[in-house]
Amino acid sequence: MIFRQLFDYDSSTYTYILADSKTLEGIILDPVLENHDRDFQILQELGIKLTWILETHVHADHITGAYQMREKTGAKIGLGKATNIVCADHLFADGEKISFGSHQLKAIATPGHTNGCTSYYLCYVGEAGASQGMLFTGDTLLIRGCGRTDFQEGSSEKLFTNIREKLFTLPDETLVYPAHDYKGRTCSSIGEEKKFNPRLKLSNSLESFSEIMKNLKLEEPKNMHKAVPANINCGKA
Amino acid sequence: MIFRQLFDYDSSTYTYILADSKTLEGIILDPVLENHDRDFQILQELGIKLTWILETHVHADHITGAYQMREKTGAKIGLGKATNIVCADHLFADGEKISFGSHQLKAIATPGHTNGCTSYYLCYVGEAGASQGMLFTGDTLLIRGCGRTDFQEGSSEKLFTNIREKLFTLPDETLVYPAHDYKGRTCSSIGEEKKFNPRLKLSNSLESFSEIMKNLKLEEPKNMHKAVPANINCGKA
Repeated sequence: MIFRQLFDYDSSTYTYILADSKTLEGIILDPVLENHDRDFQILQELGIKLTWILETHVHADHITGAYQMREKTGAKIGLGKATNIVCADHLFADGEKISFGSHQLKAIATPGHTNGCTSYYLCYVGEAGASQGMLFTGDTLLIRGCGRTDFQEGSSEKLFTNIREKLFTLPDETLVYPAHDYKGRTCSSIGEEKKFNPRLKLSNSLESFSEIMKNLKLEEPKNMHKAVPANINCGKA
Repeated sequence: MIFRQLFDYDSSTYTYILADSKTLEGIILDPVLENHDRDFQILQELGIKLTWILETHVHADHITGAYQMREKTGAKIGLGKATNIVCADHLFADGEKISFGSHQLKAIATPGHTNGCTSYYLCYVGEAGASQGMLFTGDTLLIRGCGRTDFQEGSSEKLFTNIREKLFTLPDETLVYPAHDYKGRTCSSIGEEKKFNPRLKLSNSLESFSEIMKNLKLEEPKNMHKAVPANINCGKA
């Protein structure tokens, strides 16, 4: 499989490209509008035939490059069902599969940061035949953190329950690829987050989690009032 | 295998952690002093027993965290033979192997950016039994670029010859992990660089490469006069 992780310096967003190395069918996850030229060039140079442009959710901190990527490639735009985004070509139900070549991603509805948040899970056969999963968590589960729950239909209770019941039940070795990191880390694993995530580790209760989330006192994302309306429109100018 | 790629925002440096997932013996490559706490915490949380602290070269843009990491872990510091760094525990000859658990890195002397530049090559059995190499190129080969050759015993001719003869002869699928990227890209492959590296692609000659390098007109790295003396001392304060 071809796998590329790409970083946006402004919003600290990670964009991912995955493709079947034989058929070259692939997907891009959470593209950022400002990086369209870089990302499109990589797709072209690698010869990737883009089938899906996926979003983990309606972002509040950057404008998606989904619309522009669809215009350039003809790939379809997909988000989670609960986003109700009408410019998308398809809204994935919980558990629905997305194919590219011989690979499959499974959409996992993980509301909490926003109501439409979806994680995408890829399971493949890795070194020595061991099964190695990759989980793209958006803002649901971050490395040693999680997305805020104080706007866009956020819910600490939903976030906690979904992470515990739907993500922390995946194998410990599953690699976690989030939508952001602010300390230069590029990935984690389910096992690590179960042990070391200061908000969500197994020894924490829903009550302690909700208390932490209530007291974060975060400022609004600086680009929110531009980003959310644009992203509801798939990033169309 | 455990693999972590870590980024330093100030100098755009990538640090790498590799470890055997069974024995947990591991190495760290090009640690940055300012990120010592982050990196040490990851090593601790993953339970990694550090055996080697490797450097691709004597960096001019950041101070290495090698000395501090040796103090904290007891791991040995290793660089390429031509660096002549006396604070190192070992200087690797061209072709010498470095073991961690069941894995091996091969040191490949790739002078050109500096005379002591060394790349490290890891070959492992990946998905479906396919052999998948990972190449840590330092500043020798960057994604669609390469390190400058205008100071620290730099030589465009050496850089060109070493990349063409020692790196571009590895399998096209070999993943290239550089010491830096300035556009948010995290890896490339030998096949891509042979085709798309604007300086080093196969259709370029040594003459055209030398002409490009002569006309870069780059400023000195802002921290050079602090970083080089410190790094000759393995980053000891």
